[in-house]
Amino acid sequence: MKIAAIPERVRIPRDSENDYTPESAATRREFVLQHTGINLSHVAHYSFDPSDLPGNVENFTGVAQVPIGIAGPLLINGEHAQGEFYVPLATTEGTLVSSYNRGMRLLTESGGVKTTVVDDAMQRAPVFMLGDALQAREFGCWVEENLSDIKEAAESTTHIGKLRNIDQFAVGPLRYLRFNYTTGDAAGQNMAGKATFAACEWIKGTYPLHPEYFLTGNIDTDKKHSQLNVLLGRGKRVVAEAVLRGDLMRELMHISAADLARTREIQMAGAFMAGSSNNGAHAANALAALFIATGQDVANVAESHAAITYSRELENGDFYWSITLPSLIVATYGGGTGLATQKECLEMLGCYGKGKAHKFAEICAAVVLAGETSLVSAMLHGDWVSAHEKFGRNRP
Amino acid sequence: MKIAAIPERVRIPRDSENDYTPESAATRREFVLQHTGINLSHVAHYSFDPSDLPGNVENFTGVAQVPIGIAGPLLINGEHAQGEFYVPLATTEGTLVSSYNRGMRLLTESGGVKTTVVDDAMQRAPVFMLGDALQAREFGCWVEENLSDIKEAAESTTHIGKLRNIDQFAVGPLRYLRFNYTTGDAAGQNMAGKATFAACEWIKGTYPLHPEYFLTGNIDTDKKHSQLNVLLGRGKRVVAEAVLRGDLMRELMHISAADLARTREIQMAGAFMAGSSNNGAHAANALAALFIATGQDVANVAESHAAITYSRELENGDFYWSITLPSLIVATYGGGTGLATQKECLEMLGCYGKGKAHKFAEICAAVVLAGETSLVSAMLHGDWVSAHEKFGRNRP
Amino acid sequence: MKIAAIPERVRIPRDSENDYTPESAATRREFVLQHTGINLSHVAHYSFDPSDLPGNVENFTGVAQVPIGIAGPLLINGEHAQGEFYVPLATTEGTLVSSYNRGMRLLTESGGVKTTVVDDAMQRAPVFMLGDALQAREFGCWVEENLSDIKEAAESTTHIGKLRNIDQFAVGPLRYLRFNYTTGDAAGQNMAGKATFAACEWIKGTYPLHPEYFLTGNIDTDKKHSQLNVLLGRGKRVVAEAVLRGDLMRELMHISAADLARTREIQMAGAFMAGSSNNGAHAANALAALFIATGQDVANVAESHAAITYSRELENGDFYWSITLPSLIVATYGGGTGLATQKECLEMLGCYGKGKAHKFAEICAAVVLAGETSLVSAMLHGDWVSAHEKFGRNRP
Amino acid sequence: MKIAAIPERVRIPRDSENDYTPESAATRREFVLQHTGINLSHVAHYSFDPSDLPGNVENFTGVAQVPIGIAGPLLINGEHAQGEFYVPLATTEGTLVSSYNRGMRLLTESGGVKTTVVDDAMQRAPVFMLGDALQAREFGCWVEENLSDIKEAAESTTHIGKLRNIDQFAVGPLRYLRFNYTTGDAAGQNMAGKATFAACEWIKGTYPLHPEYFLTGNIDTDKKHSQLNVLLGRGKRVVAEAVLRGDLMRELMHISAADLARTREIQMAGAFMAGSSNNGAHAANALAALFIATGQDVANVAESHAAITYSRELENGDFYWSITLPSLIVATYGGGTGLATQKECLEMLGCYGKGKAHKFAEICAAVVLAGETSLVSAMLHGDWVSAHEKFGRNRP
Repeated sequence: MKIAAIPERVRIPRDSENDYTPESAATRREFVLQHTGINLSHVAHYSFDPSDLPGNVENFTGVAQVPIGIAGPLLINGEHAQGEFYVPLATTEGTLVSSYNRGMRLLTESGGVKTTVVDDAMQRAPVFMLGDALQAREFGCWVEENLSDIKEAAESTTHIGKLRNIDQFAVGPLRYLRFNYTTGDAAGQNMAGKATFAACEWIKGTYPLHPEYFLTGNIDTDKKHSQLNVLLGRGKRVVAEAVLRGDLMRELMHISAADLARTREIQMAGAFMAGSSNNGAHAANALAALFIATGQDVANVAESHAAITYSRELENGDFYWSITLPSLIVATYGGGTGLATQKECLEMLGCYGKGKAHKFAEICAAVVLAGETSLVSAMLHGDWVSAHEKFGRNRP
Repeated sequence: MKIAAIPERVRIPRDSENDYTPESAATRREFVLQHTGINLSHVAHYSFDPSDLPGNVENFTGVAQVPIGIAGPLLINGEHAQGEFYVPLATTEGTLVSSYNRGMRLLTESGGVKTTVVDDAMQRAPVFMLGDALQAREFGCWVEENLSDIKEAAESTTHIGKLRNIDQFAVGPLRYLRFNYTTGDAAGQNMAGKATFAACEWIKGTYPLHPEYFLTGNIDTDKKHSQLNVLLGRGKRVVAEAVLRGDLMRELMHISAADLARTREIQMAGAFMAGSSNNGAHAANALAALFIATGQDVANVAESHAAITYSRELENGDFYWSITLPSLIVATYGGGTGLATQKECLEMLGCYGKGKAHKFAEICAAVVLAGETSLVSAMLHGDWVSAHEKFGRNRP
Repeated sequence: MKIAAIPERVRIPRDSENDYTPESAATRREFVLQHTGINLSHVAHYSFDPSDLPGNVENFTGVAQVPIGIAGPLLINGEHAQGEFYVPLATTEGTLVSSYNRGMRLLTESGGVKTTVVDDAMQRAPVFMLGDALQAREFGCWVEENLSDIKEAAESTTHIGKLRNIDQFAVGPLRYLRFNYTTGDAAGQNMAGKATFAACEWIKGTYPLHPEYFLTGNIDTDKKHSQLNVLLGRGKRVVAEAVLRGDLMRELMHISAADLARTREIQMAGAFMAGSSNNGAHAANALAALFIATGQDVANVAESHAAITYSRELENGDFYWSITLPSLIVATYGGGTGLATQKECLEMLGCYGKGKAHKFAEICAAVVLAGETSLVSAMLHGDWVSAHEKFGRNRP
Repeated sequence: MKIAAIPERVRIPRDSENDYTPESAATRREFVLQHTGINLSHVAHYSFDPSDLPGNVENFTGVAQVPIGIAGPLLINGEHAQGEFYVPLATTEGTLVSSYNRGMRLLTESGGVKTTVVDDAMQRAPVFMLGDALQAREFGCWVEENLSDIKEAAESTTHIGKLRNIDQFAVGPLRYLRFNYTTGDAAGQNMAGKATFAACEWIKGTYPLHPEYFLTGNIDTDKKHSQLNVLLGRGKRVVAEAVLRGDLMRELMHISAADLARTREIQMAGAFMAGSSNNGAHAANALAALFIATGQDVANVAESHAAITYSRELENGDFYWSITLPSLIVATYGGGTGLATQKECLEMLGCYGKGKAHKFAEICAAVVLAGETSLVSAMLHGDWVSAHEKFGRNRP
């Protein structure tokens, strides 16, 4: 066994008393200057009080300034989102805002987007290790029979989270349990983690075999796309749908419903062959831009960008288009939603604070659909490349 | 056929002469105030000249201020990245920076991370529509035989991009072609799109049957995870690997190589069952935070977060750990890399500008590996939930 | 609209009174001789009465004679299968029987295989088409609230099948319902189809919107592998597990637990990258051979061959190995199980008739595990190719 | 370390001199009778000489008699298969033959099926273990540069197999190589295994680092479905396509092209969501029945049942339907193709022996397409359940 003292290295300065001050940030920028020669002068430029930041970042040093463009109006006829919205998109990709703007116009003129949150739950999925498959099966039955006690243990840790149900997956002597929680307006990963930890401790202590467990068995799948999430959902499962008017498609996009139908057939075959997370065009552009602007956990683009498009050419020359986001992770409360610019952007959508998460999820889905219509139309009409030539040429 | 005039709606104000001015931005903030009642006072707070923004955003209105924390030092022994790095992470998720910091310490004390870019290409994948499968097969042969002409047509549009090869995928009467380009230090999606468009026009004009095509057949898969990307790569395919010292694992993380090995077996089974994009813990946290800080296209987290972990318990009690990112999309030139704060963050890593893309890709992979070691250790040692309690509790 | 009389073509002869006679079969062989010049003399060689065949085949003409080899003994310590078994394997692939035989010896000498059926249900998954996603969500709630009536409608068609639960999956305006039935000792696809048809008719007639439906929305996924089946199961979910003794591995297979552990790490990474249905070696060899021998629906190899291997090197030099078959479709009653040779082979395993399906499922899993140990050992020890040289060289 | 003598157990009798005799088979049936009490009287009923069996089975004991029904005529306009075919289907599933028969009629009356083999290669995919990712990348380059020597080493083992190319996949310090061979009319798994073994030995001996390897890294993926096979093919990649006449669809199937189009949209969404191996109805039924009848390796249904359907409603009311089987493994030479009944069935299709593999692959695809049209039509017209009631009711 090697025994070696860990040498003292230079450490990033940190004020153990109160690290969330302009001075601490400045000290770290000075440290960066000394160690890398780079003066973080723009990074230093922020407009809020660092004392707002505990729970959002450690070693705060400054900010990334990400340009925000606005697009709209987008007419939404949802359960929660109703009316015309102007949408803040934080991005550095040229043409993104103008493309979404174009799609929003088509959707709005066609009568707007219908949006529906069809499911809502956040997960944590521990795995229990039993002696063999039979023990694991019996353990699974016990979990089912003791659900109300497990629920009590889990919910003892949170005022908001409610344990809805536990999915079970058997592999050899292992039992993966997938705890599903409703989490109000928070995204709820931490809430779910804490509650599941309490539940697992209770299970381990109570079940006669006192089985070991890991708090995650890697099927959650937190910040990762998975077919499991596409099937069973994670966060919000939300649908946006619209009927594109044939005359408007021709006038605004220079395409027809028949064009679209043919494209969709080919794109569905391609996505299927590729083993893609999304059989539509792309949801990630809208979601990344919205997530940055509104203080979402941007890593959740990994799960949230999955989508299932289902569309139909209608007999009258219109085109029905739906997109289902099976695992959209969003919050209007907690996380980064209360930070300075982030809060303003949520407020601009009428989505800051409690009771707004479903409204915001609906807006996200509607914006995604706007991008789908615009991108596919551009691709069909051949102005995709030329649009990027016009808007997407940054300095190089 | 419906015939309906498109009504005039309120449109977001835009200066058709020069829209990239503080005045235009202010006008749009005023517009937002009028239409939503929200004063974008923090969003208005930026430190650069909007004239820098063409090619990055339209309808510029202000900025999202995303907090940056720094972590490090991270010792990297790569081909391109060599030495100790301090890493800017833009995030609103509490514990993220401190968790990566902890992982970096373990990796650095264990001797650092080895990094290798093993492949590098950007794609655009059009689909040609032939009359039947036989025609499509013959078309495919023709494409192969005429590769040098196709290459010439594609490369006529770009000084940097080089067409490396074309993969072909046959479905019924369709031929999906996947053009692979080297694109220097740009991520290269637009470059690949433009070059492929020129190539397709040449093909369509030259091939006797003059087949129709779509510029994308949805197998690219741009801003979408796919098994195809995991297999064939997209952007950089990059590996980070390290040998964790057994004594340091115990001292810093309170775990052993045997613990890790057992966890990995279970996590691989879980990821496989779930149909996950990543059989490790999560790459998305590191990548989203790095991408925002350094002006990458954040939507590419969708593709970039895929990963394959391969690890081994060593006989001496150490633990070999590798992570392969098969489809990491990064740039050090073009896109958002030249913007004010973004450039500073790239410079801080010694990664701004030409000839730096592989170095930056290596750093990304090394940071991802730091997060893997930290998260799995925390989960094993049971301080995962408590860490989030301490650092991840934002105001609610 | 084209109007064209369908021309009279030569049709395969069929006796509309009673087609299941030696004479009808002979007439069709004569027809084949006339139309193809081929005399089906071996095909004509069967030992049962064609009057046994209604419900198993139409246009009966003769039989395929598939060679059966036997392997064993295989010691199984299951819930239902207990003792030493001799296993009939119908195959034309050389080395298959001898390889399974070798694996069975290792397992048996190591103390046998533990087997457990951890879940059991057969599915039919119709899709209902509603007007929009909101209607579809409300429809989904109604289905849940009216489960007992739906159950009654479904079960009115069968004495054996019981509707256990209905999974729901939302896509746009569609609601995919996945009906899960217990089906006794039959595989139950037809039972599930008939019951679900009755349930759907009841739903369509009763639900106020009287929605259209298709009896399958293609998520069943009948005779197709799918990630859904891996996760949620189809037919039997069954586990076989064993502890291989280190000394026996060395003596019989010339390998060690450490060798196996290293191989498994690499094979899990490979299977994950490939997007494989099975992270082990192969289940299909055992299943195809058992299915042909015992009158299973051989097309179900498509679903049944999926598997999840979870294994561990033990500290004492032994090796724990489990394989989970998530979607094994087998029957001991109905289908082809009562035919002449098929019944004999089931009887040889003590598995013919009612109350035997779980026993047979356990045997299937145990045989699969035998093949895993043998194949991986052969691959490791380098005698894979030479074994095929010896046993697998058929005439060419 | 346990040291234990392996006890002598009862072993299945085997004649070490010549085991392929009626007497050896009878001895084993007697052994089965003694050990299980079951008299294998029907299994004993075969019409060939056991001396034909070396290379096809060990411990030969008798045969499974699988009923064969014939369907047709099926009009095929392929490159290799041309004319009307009568197809032997070995099955125990009622309705299967009559359903394929019905689909064949629709296809034949509509003008027949066009078939094309668009690719053809068999694989073996070893994995080499290097010291780190950089070494593995350099090794990969070396393999590419030394391809002609590797090819020579591989092809030294076979007169028929030709090494076409080697795909490479990088994971950490591992290099998975996927050798692609053309294998004439044999399926070629053993040929590919033997040739790759020789190539690997040459590589290991020649490359300066003398890296260890496993002959399979589990990405082959032999007898397993995988996304890799869907993308890159395995065995034959073959397309069947047809234009169904609108009037015939109505008259024979009671459906319209519009019905089909709508169904396809929903089935593609369902298959995508489920993570299915096949976005059509099912290929496994046809393939299992054909494979048993013609002496194919039936375990290959696992790979072969994958399919991509691409279809279009045509403006004139007809319906274009294609199915692509990306990984169809078939042979007309070697394996079980020369056995008594198997040879007769291949001959009946004009497919026995050398130079026939592409013809047989085309027939397989055409038969699959017949089943797709019949099953979807039945499902649409609601006679699916009733057909199974009529034809699929076996004794229970």
